Amino acid sequence: MAQTSSNELSRFLRRLHAVREYTQEPISEDVIQDILEVGRWSGSSANKQPTEIVVIRDPELQSKFGEWGARPAATAGVVFLIVSGSEANAFDEGRLAERLLLGAAAHGLGSTVATLKGEGPAAAKQLLGIPEDRRAIFVVAVGHTDVEARRARKPNPEARKPIEQFAHWDRY
Amino acid sequence: MAQTSSNELSRFLRRLHAVREYTQEPISEDVIQDILEVGRWSGSSANKQPTEIVVIRDPELQSKFGEWGARPAATAGVVFLIVSGSEANAFDEGRLAERLLLGAAAHGLGSTVATLKGEGPAAAKQLLGIPEDRRAIFVVAVGHTDVEARRARKPNPEARKPIEQFAHWDRY
Repeated sequence: MAQTSSNELSRFLRRLHAVREYTQEPISEDVIQDILEVGRWSGSSANKQPTEIVVIRDPELQSKFGEWGARPAATAGVVFLIVSGSEANAFDEGRLAERLLLGAAAHGLGSTVATLKGEGPAAAKQLLGIPEDRRAIFVVAVGHTDVEARRARKPNPEARKPIEQFAHWDRY
Repeated sequence: MAQTSSNELSRFLRRLHAVREYTQEPISEDVIQDILEVGRWSGSSANKQPTEIVVIRDPELQSKFGEWGARPAATAGVVFLIVSGSEANAFDEGRLAERLLLGAAAHGLGSTVATLKGEGPAAAKQLLGIPEDRRAIFVVAVGHTDVEARRARKPNPEARKPIEQFAHWDRY
């Protein structure tokens, strides 16, 4: 990355934050494809590539995801449902989710992780034709950030613990 | 990110790949701190921030990690051990790991995820003073890429399945 400084890239990575308020502005298929390419190059344990994505743009389907606990999915421009083999793939799912969030941020889009709760995973699998033995819990919702709605919200609760509580040097 | 184009950022994200061959060139503490800052801003379920890091730079400790199954840790410039509460945090651990890998890549460093196997997690926890009830399996090894050693290796096995097998549109 000769043309982009380490500082710019670090700042880009640090600045990622959850956005749950979206405008109705559509997201082009080119941008969705680009985010998917970022996701496709996700690393995985022994390069087994246990994860897949279902891209959801149907507003009715998205509403259902909202009802199933993944609330931001209802108003997102596009929803990526992460499908994998089992709970043993949760670490790789997390790696993929982070890439999708960052891939969206590269296009100036807001995003968040949301989860299907209760009967949500089973209902989603049935509706989307995903085999019962697959796992489908985590969702990445992406949309154009609604700046006004975000501003009207309570102050940003996305604090992080101080570095001294996060990182230990050489010993715990 | 006005000064960095979407294309550059997407390419930066797509280009991340596992590097397991490192030179002995040291990594400055500033760079380690910057990677940790990227990690610290990792998102987590309900912002519970269940993950912590132990930064390991002691060559003897790193050798032990190599013996415990996390082979690339032995020759890395720095090793980040991810500590969390339980297997339920695996998704958040994956998100954090991806950020550490990308944080290292922002500085032009090579990196890979490795895992402690068998008795590795218990032994590591004992040696580093991590409480027994904490989880410590995943490691991110970081170093200056040994370009010669990489070139001498067998052709890069890091293929990915084609996009048609990775992404499904609207239905599975």
